Amino acid sequence: MSSTAQASFFRSRWVERPAHVAELEATALPSGFRAAGVAAGIKSSGLDVGLLASDERATASAARFTTSAVLGAPVIVSRGAALERLRAVVASSGNANVADGERGIATATAAQAAAADVLDVPADAVGVAATGVIGRELPRQALVAGIERAGGELGPDAGDFSEALLTTDRGPKHACLEVSLPSGTVRLAGQAKGAGMVAPAFATVLCFVETDAELDPQTLDLLTGVTVKRSFDRTTVDGQLSTSDSLFVLASGASGVRVEQETDDELALGEALDALLRQLALEVVGDGEGALRIGRIVVRGAAEAVEPAARAIANSPLVKTALHGADPNFGRILAAAGQALAGWEPLHLDLRIEGRQLVSAGAVLDLTSAELEQLAEAVGGREVEYELTLPGEGGETEVFFSDLSHEYVTLNAEYTT
Amino acid sequence: MSSTAQASFFRSRWVERPAHVAELEATALPSGFRAAGVAAGIKSSGLDVGLLASDERATASAARFTTSAVLGAPVIVSRGAALERLRAVVASSGNANVADGERGIATATAAQAAAADVLDVPADAVGVAATGVIGRELPRQALVAGIERAGGELGPDAGDFSEALLTTDRGPKHACLEVSLPSGTVRLAGQAKGAGMVAPAFATVLCFVETDAELDPQTLDLLTGVTVKRSFDRTTVDGQLSTSDSLFVLASGASGVRVEQETDDELALGEALDALLRQLALEVVGDGEGALRIGRIVVRGAAEAVEPAARAIANSPLVKTALHGADPNFGRILAAAGQALAGWEPLHLDLRIEGRQLVSAGAVLDLTSAELEQLAEAVGGREVEYELTLPGEGGETEVFFSDLSHEYVTLNAEYTT
Repeated sequence: MSSTAQASFFRSRWVERPAHVAELEATALPSGFRAAGVAAGIKSSGLDVGLLASDERATASAARFTTSAVLGAPVIVSRGAALERLRAVVASSGNANVADGERGIATATAAQAAAADVLDVPADAVGVAATGVIGRELPRQALVAGIERAGGELGPDAGDFSEALLTTDRGPKHACLEVSLPSGTVRLAGQAKGAGMVAPAFATVLCFVETDAELDPQTLDLLTGVTVKRSFDRTTVDGQLSTSDSLFVLASGASGVRVEQETDDELALGEALDALLRQLALEVVGDGEGALRIGRIVVRGAAEAVEPAARAIANSPLVKTALHGADPNFGRILAAAGQALAGWEPLHLDLRIEGRQLVSAGAVLDLTSAELEQLAEAVGGREVEYELTLPGEGGETEVFFSDLSHEYVTLNAEYTT
Repeated sequence: MSSTAQASFFRSRWVERPAHVAELEATALPSGFRAAGVAAGIKSSGLDVGLLASDERATASAARFTTSAVLGAPVIVSRGAALERLRAVVASSGNANVADGERGIATATAAQAAAADVLDVPADAVGVAATGVIGRELPRQALVAGIERAGGELGPDAGDFSEALLTTDRGPKHACLEVSLPSGTVRLAGQAKGAGMVAPAFATVLCFVETDAELDPQTLDLLTGVTVKRSFDRTTVDGQLSTSDSLFVLASGASGVRVEQETDDELALGEALDALLRQLALEVVGDGEGALRIGRIVVRGAAEAVEPAARAIANSPLVKTALHGADPNFGRILAAAGQALAGWEPLHLDLRIEGRQLVSAGAVLDLTSAELEQLAEAVGGREVEYELTLPGEGGETEVFFSDLSHEYVTLNAEYTT
């Protein structure tokens, strides 16, 4: 079937499904791919080891990783792989394999080798990713045994693979799209994981994307870079960059539809990838630990000022608690911008919340009680939009962020080392 | 009496009471000063307007303000005053008078003029400060009436003044010290307010310091600058710089003891001021909205790296929730440092918590279960110390921070615009 009667994957008003994209069964995979997920005992319960493989020798790939200076062993090992020609990825959850020195590197390398063995591909054609607790030994034997078992369970559905990525996530985040390109029809699928420790830069927590289009690694890398910048790079849950953020994109070419650079095919595939990654990124934000709502802050004004202002607002615990409490607290937005833009004083700001102007040239407007009631209702929804205008011109940016809730505190005060 | 049987004001292990300092009644004032606090109806209940005045014509003063580009009207008006020769300060709570345009400036100016009238001093000899909700009109008539009433109630005790500063604070923060200088004995007192929106830079939320020592404004400014850098500038509750941070220091000279620059008198007074401001700053951190504990992160290593690493750790919601949950979560400390120091990879870090080494050259050490139990107990106390060593040399800094609790979320999701 080419579309389902279920609620659309594209449920955010900030992401439009392109007209040439149809939604398939969410856990379907493009041709050439197989996946599996097993319970290997790394987590106390549930699936925790996933394996994703392309059967096509000519598979192209691209990857992005965290910019943290403290890296998980899987990131270190993956960066040494043949990132343009990956055939498979191993992902595990429950233990991120970080800060375990040489032992951690050896475990990530063992996982890579185990997957290579079971799939009969070179070791450097395997990427490795892990998420979970940091600073604890990842049980190597359990991981390797899980990979071997997953190798025997590979099939054309990404459901178990997607579930094996999860930690504090409320549920899996995935989609499979049918994309009509001028030269033919291809599939594009993605599975993501992420709830806390989310403030990506050139990567996200864990995200895997598959397509059966045929692309050069250079074209794939270009599309990946552009779309990651408009999706995961624009999100924050708690402003905390992970040691483990990894994004892998694999193109099997099994559809036989070739996508060349600077063609309408590339544009159309790019639009589909853009929509997929933006919605997956919003799923991660919306699943931010304990999150009730997603905020979108749009900042316009001087080019050098929009990014620090937007980040300061999106990461402000005062703005985030106000979002949680459905409080249109414009004062905290102004204060966060003022902190980020020290030296710009006097900072004459305009602010709109849900389309309603509240602040003009730095001074609060007097609203009628009917207007205030309308506003209070608008900020009680699932998505809340803030638009801030700074002095100057030429810059515009957006950041998506979650609210800060009691559940975030509970999860993170109790989630152990 | 020159000391009390009460618990010492210097209750933190990170602040030592200098040997030449004795504690007086906490709300006592140095000679030459009078203060009052009244309920003017700005808050729904309790004292909310305070007045502090020096009777001495030759009073010297110094001040520090927030570096935010969005300033409260009281800060704007105070910055235009004769900051080296202030005779009085008006402080009000419940409404910070921010983002109210010309109307807000006129209200702060009216408060300044009202205090000048009632005290018979020039208007520019009066500083103004306010704390509370931002983006709402501060009721001018109530404020002015409160100042006039406070003018009739001035007395030698700072108790009501100190209480009139409070918003979400759990209680007042104040002390009065007797300081033995080589040239004679002086008094030094301080009253502070602050619980949330605390990440000072060259100022704190609201702090007022009085001494009857006689100093040139230049000497007072120098001592203020040095001691603020070692106290309020090293603290954070939620990483949020306020629009209203203000610190005023007034020296009446009424003791007749003159403190000259570069003398043992200046050194001894500086030590007392340093201890007073450090403990007041820790009281603000310890009263961080919902806070159970105070963390101290000490970072040593390359000079350019210690400050960003320490700030990132102190402001990390993951580190702060772990502190709250009495969880010695070294992984989150490493991750926060890694985020702050992008480009420093591989970042070989050493970490101690409460004196116990947990991480060496980036890898976690294996501790015995007895050692882990000991550590778990140590991080359950009121104060927890973390020491991080980065590559490189020549830098060392410290930041004091509060934990992140459910109560912070409750207070800030419900504290209204």
